[in-house]
Amino acid sequence: MKKRIREFGVQIGSLEPGVRNAITDVPGVTVGHVTLRAGSVQTGVTAIVPHPGNLFREKVAAAVQVINGFGKTVGTVQIAELGTLETPILLTNTLSVGTVSEALVRYMLEQTPEIGVTTGTVNPVVCECNDGWLNDIRGLHVQAEHVEAALKRAGEAVEEGAVGAGTGMTCYGLKGGIGTSSRVVRIGEQSYTVGVLVLSNFGRLDDLQVAGQSVGPRIREQVANATRPESTTTTEQAAPAASTSTNSTDTCDFPPVPDRDQGSIIIVMATDLPLSDRQLQRVATRAGVGLVRTGSYIGHGSGDLVLAFSTATRFPHESPEPILMLPLLHDHFLDPAFRAAAECTEEAILNSLVAADPVTGRDGHHCESLRDYL
Amino acid sequence: MKKRIREFGVQIGSLEPGVRNAITDVPGVTVGHVTLRAGSVQTGVTAIVPHPGNLFREKVAAAVQVINGFGKTVGTVQIAELGTLETPILLTNTLSVGTVSEALVRYMLEQTPEIGVTTGTVNPVVCECNDGWLNDIRGLHVQAEHVEAALKRAGEAVEEGAVGAGTGMTCYGLKGGIGTSSRVVRIGEQSYTVGVLVLSNFGRLDDLQVAGQSVGPRIREQVANATRPESTTTTEQAAPAASTSTNSTDTCDFPPVPDRDQGSIIIVMATDLPLSDRQLQRVATRAGVGLVRTGSYIGHGSGDLVLAFSTATRFPHESPEPILMLPLLHDHFLDPAFRAAAECTEEAILNSLVAADPVTGRDGHHCESLRDYL
Amino acid sequence: MKKRIREFGVQIGSLEPGVRNAITDVPGVTVGHVTLRAGSVQTGVTAIVPHPGNLFREKVAAAVQVINGFGKTVGTVQIAELGTLETPILLTNTLSVGTVSEALVRYMLEQTPEIGVTTGTVNPVVCECNDGWLNDIRGLHVQAEHVEAALKRAGEAVEEGAVGAGTGMTCYGLKGGIGTSSRVVRIGEQSYTVGVLVLSNFGRLDDLQVAGQSVGPRIREQVANATRPESTTTTEQAAPAASTSTNSTDTCDFPPVPDRDQGSIIIVMATDLPLSDRQLQRVATRAGVGLVRTGSYIGHGSGDLVLAFSTATRFPHESPEPILMLPLLHDHFLDPAFRAAAECTEEAILNSLVAADPVTGRDGHHCESLRDYL
Amino acid sequence: MKKRIREFGVQIGSLEPGVRNAITDVPGVTVGHVTLRAGSVQTGVTAIVPHPGNLFREKVAAAVQVINGFGKTVGTVQIAELGTLETPILLTNTLSVGTVSEALVRYMLEQTPEIGVTTGTVNPVVCECNDGWLNDIRGLHVQAEHVEAALKRAGEAVEEGAVGAGTGMTCYGLKGGIGTSSRVVRIGEQSYTVGVLVLSNFGRLDDLQVAGQSVGPRIREQVANATRPESTTTTEQAAPAASTSTNSTDTCDFPPVPDRDQGSIIIVMATDLPLSDRQLQRVATRAGVGLVRTGSYIGHGSGDLVLAFSTATRFPHESPEPILMLPLLHDHFLDPAFRAAAECTEEAILNSLVAADPVTGRDGHHCESLRDYL
Repeated sequence: MKKRIREFGVQIGSLEPGVRNAITDVPGVTVGHVTLRAGSVQTGVTAIVPHPGNLFREKVAAAVQVINGFGKTVGTVQIAELGTLETPILLTNTLSVGTVSEALVRYMLEQTPEIGVTTGTVNPVVCECNDGWLNDIRGLHVQAEHVEAALKRAGEAVEEGAVGAGTGMTCYGLKGGIGTSSRVVRIGEQSYTVGVLVLSNFGRLDDLQVAGQSVGPRIREQVANATRPESTTTTEQAAPAASTSTNSTDTCDFPPVPDRDQGSIIIVMATDLPLSDRQLQRVATRAGVGLVRTGSYIGHGSGDLVLAFSTATRFPHESPEPILMLPLLHDHFLDPAFRAAAECTEEAILNSLVAADPVTGRDGHHCESLRDYL
Repeated sequence: MKKRIREFGVQIGSLEPGVRNAITDVPGVTVGHVTLRAGSVQTGVTAIVPHPGNLFREKVAAAVQVINGFGKTVGTVQIAELGTLETPILLTNTLSVGTVSEALVRYMLEQTPEIGVTTGTVNPVVCECNDGWLNDIRGLHVQAEHVEAALKRAGEAVEEGAVGAGTGMTCYGLKGGIGTSSRVVRIGEQSYTVGVLVLSNFGRLDDLQVAGQSVGPRIREQVANATRPESTTTTEQAAPAASTSTNSTDTCDFPPVPDRDQGSIIIVMATDLPLSDRQLQRVATRAGVGLVRTGSYIGHGSGDLVLAFSTATRFPHESPEPILMLPLLHDHFLDPAFRAAAECTEEAILNSLVAADPVTGRDGHHCESLRDYL
Repeated sequence: MKKRIREFGVQIGSLEPGVRNAITDVPGVTVGHVTLRAGSVQTGVTAIVPHPGNLFREKVAAAVQVINGFGKTVGTVQIAELGTLETPILLTNTLSVGTVSEALVRYMLEQTPEIGVTTGTVNPVVCECNDGWLNDIRGLHVQAEHVEAALKRAGEAVEEGAVGAGTGMTCYGLKGGIGTSSRVVRIGEQSYTVGVLVLSNFGRLDDLQVAGQSVGPRIREQVANATRPESTTTTEQAAPAASTSTNSTDTCDFPPVPDRDQGSIIIVMATDLPLSDRQLQRVATRAGVGLVRTGSYIGHGSGDLVLAFSTATRFPHESPEPILMLPLLHDHFLDPAFRAAAECTEEAILNSLVAADPVTGRDGHHCESLRDYL
Repeated sequence: MKKRIREFGVQIGSLEPGVRNAITDVPGVTVGHVTLRAGSVQTGVTAIVPHPGNLFREKVAAAVQVINGFGKTVGTVQIAELGTLETPILLTNTLSVGTVSEALVRYMLEQTPEIGVTTGTVNPVVCECNDGWLNDIRGLHVQAEHVEAALKRAGEAVEEGAVGAGTGMTCYGLKGGIGTSSRVVRIGEQSYTVGVLVLSNFGRLDDLQVAGQSVGPRIREQVANATRPESTTTTEQAAPAASTSTNSTDTCDFPPVPDRDQGSIIIVMATDLPLSDRQLQRVATRAGVGLVRTGSYIGHGSGDLVLAFSTATRFPHESPEPILMLPLLHDHFLDPAFRAAAECTEEAILNSLVAADPVTGRDGHHCESLRDYL
């Protein structure tokens, strides 16, 4: 079992996490990965499923907050107009968005025979980061079958690190990828959950902060002055990484200086709080607070985007009744959700870093794990 | 040669059109179609190429204006952030956006070996309307090869009507599709061009207006009281249309009452005026004026979107010099461009209607041409 | 009693108006004017009050749609963030916004002793157009007492034309000002109302359209070829107008060619439909449809802005319960409200034109009434 | 002379400040304050003047970034549409925005006789925070003469702390107010400056971080366990503060728990980098990074807004030539400006805290200075 940032004695924020400290603490939310890992192929797909029903027929309130829009996420125009999400959210590498988008359309068509016949079309939502440093991204290695598999594998346990869409991502010059966290929010006598899953792929090593401490420069020095620490790499992917990198420090490109376009983060946020799309966007904005607390300056080349949804209400695609009666949190009670969003995001990013095994990929490019330097 | 709305004695606005009265009057802009037309397959691809160079290496200023966002266009997040376009614009049916997006990525990768290796990724721009009334949209009939062919065929002559992405579109209960128009704008002693290409797929017959005259109700009556007029259908697609529809008025579903989600219009606008992305967005907003003048109320189910670009400046992907010296139109001189945008859009929509041959497609659904009722 | 556009045999759209064909058909909404009319002082204040209670304590859902933002309306930032309106809406001339804003703050403080002591501050909403063609706008003639009086006079009868904030406005080269209209919307078995009040101050005479007919050029010709028609000016303001203008055609500046910055329209929309702020913004967007149907190209120099609110729910400033249960219209049923918004706006603008008496103001500038040319 | 955060050994970021470490390091920018300080009146006005010319005739590129829009800033609609600023920027308390706005209009009218006569109107920009905890904000104590005085006093020396609009502000439960900082950015062989001035009025003591260190809880403990440290209050305002607070710990309301609406920050950013309005908005977004680094979670009740302008180009109100040739920084070179924006903002906030003398105001409410606890 991979260690998480809390097991290193690092505490983020003041609110309590949920049972799994994962986005799947929000009831009904599930996550599935498909990992492609073989030499210069270091990529994959991650699916976040908001509820087990048919999302097209029972939509959830949703909002997108673009922190920096140097990115290629699809599906945002309709979410902005209608405030609802009608498919699972898929994460992958930048150049595979089209492939994954088509596969998600096919999946929705299969589940929902009325689409395109007796009713309208469907709005696939696919988010991305550029894993081109470690992955042969030009190879477009993600296939439709990987999308189906990620959706099929979706469950409550969330694997973190160099898995799924996170397989080839780099973050703060270290191995990034998938991380998750959650917070319990008490409002009145009720408890609600805010959960976050990140795909981390941004930042310069020198900027990295762990709970307010600048750790980047120290790690850089450690690497420069000494041999690399013994890797905690698990056996599965140890072999190629070891052969390419640990034996030859001169070919070691650590820390990588990725092209600026590579930097990005996708933050998916779920909650069971009864929030409107406007409120979701406000909560999503606070994910940026957590992002900044890990050290980011939100570089020019980053596609930083938050996608938030609430499972509290399911909006029928076609309603027999024109007027719905819906629960809505009064804005005055939003602050705990804001704080939760920030804390979850910060912790999810750190989890993505410590959970990620070192990876060697395309052209021998290598990334170390923060875990080995804490 | 298909007749255009001017040949029916209809004059739109007060400004003069360009030589071709087409988007390709803007120097360097070309358009290519691939049409898929066979029974229930009525769809295709249209490519608009802003200039003959490599768009990734030499970007153009661009802006997106969402009139109503019930749509699935991709590529908008980055355009909003960076104000530039770095691929040709492709139009297709809603469910084929993923396929076309992947094909456009492959096309750009082939042209540009540095993408994903020594520099970042690329932002494909694909716009869409739902042609599901006439086309078996669930069949995902558009393939990568059609994208390549549309790009390869791009030229200065622009075919209108039921061609390319417009093959299966319906507009005001009639056959819609591709239309284009342009206007010459004189500013100081210089002449510039504003050109528009539309993919029309919206509206109710009763709302249709031609140059301020309500013609919809009259057409409806004509159809109800009498047999259909002799179609001017050209031979190419006459056969199936005729057999399915003109012979059996009882199977005639004219005018169609399309599902509300089907309604959409994509408006692509080009100009050689030196406009910033902010100014382009302002000009794009006036395309909505032309849309409304044809009778639209901008229904809930429409994905109405304007994508505008200027060819006046080519922005290098990476610039040797940090500071560029660029021409910029003073805002005070924008009004003629606004008027041109409105006039072009109105005329392009009418051109799409009169140029479109009647079509019979999926499940025997049939659409007449406005041309036969003017 | 002033004639309205319907009394000229002009019918706009297909939906039925409410009892008064005015924004005050939305239950609880009232309107009050203060008119300042004396030589070169041609200005005033108009108040729209969403409900008779304390708006700070019981807010209404609201949204702002900026059609063209060359304007100085205040209060929009908070409406965009929170989706609520907490003061009456005041209209006045551009340079008096500060004065009116301060007066509105004082009015709210008086009504609400807790503001600034035990709770936060208040967000005054003041919209404006530039009446500088007819009014000595640099004189800042509007005073705090006029704001109080306009609020005190608010009632269900709505005077139109050159009154209140509309006193000095010009529209399509004619006298503009205040106009109103409403539509009844049937959804399921319930009837709801959409009402609009406009402050019209935009457009070129040549562009004016009445129900799709271009009437501007004909009016221009009438004026050029002949003497001015006998004015229907009511006695109240006839004297100065007559002496300055009708006797000396050479000083006649008809039609005025106003500076481009003068063009603007404020559209206030009310409804009792249970709409969210997002839905209100979508409905507000369709007010632009009505604007365009009267002939506008939305010039560069215009500050065209729609402010929409729903009276269906009153949001308590501080709620004892964190979760509210609220009615919400399903988006699928929005289309009639969209159509109503467009029709109301078009008719309200025409009402503002035919209701306006001719006015002579600053520097002998004179505006005729459309009424005298229909 | 007041100490600044650097004199406490705290270093923020890696870039070098300008000569004054102030917004006035950007050539041409000046700042003036008027402070109203007497018992329960603790408020004022601050003017930021972008250049010494007539701003209406020679505008500067500008952008507004709303971080959280629970605020009442005016002038944003036009800046968003036109991308230019045409008046000095004034800061004051929330309820005085109308008064200050009118005064700013009068100032511009006096300077610019053509406004409202031969050309259009003017867009006053006034930003605000709620100083109601210390100030009798309901008293509307700011007068037109204070605006004129602040504009007249504008110079290159910037006083910080409880002065001008900052007189009554509270921040992190301590005395807030005015702070400033700057950074030198080297791009190619040229040096440019990014400068920030903040009006700080937000945050909870427990969240305060100084250079990554959480200092809030320690300060709270210090206060609870012990008597207050000897104040460094300067003589000017020492008397009332001392008599009300230091002698009676039981009336001490330290740290204040301000109503949530009180929390806000206005961040004004200046640069001589040749940036477009779009780029300025991107740089402004990074001011939020600096805000977060001081500990903010961007609460619901905050009106957090960034107003950025560039002095590199002066845009003529009316241009003789339609096409201008303008310098523009290539986006690829923006990162140093982003980092500078974040560093300046963080340091300016800390400067506002350590420069602020303790203040006792309305109802004996008292705020301590961070300076006395570092």
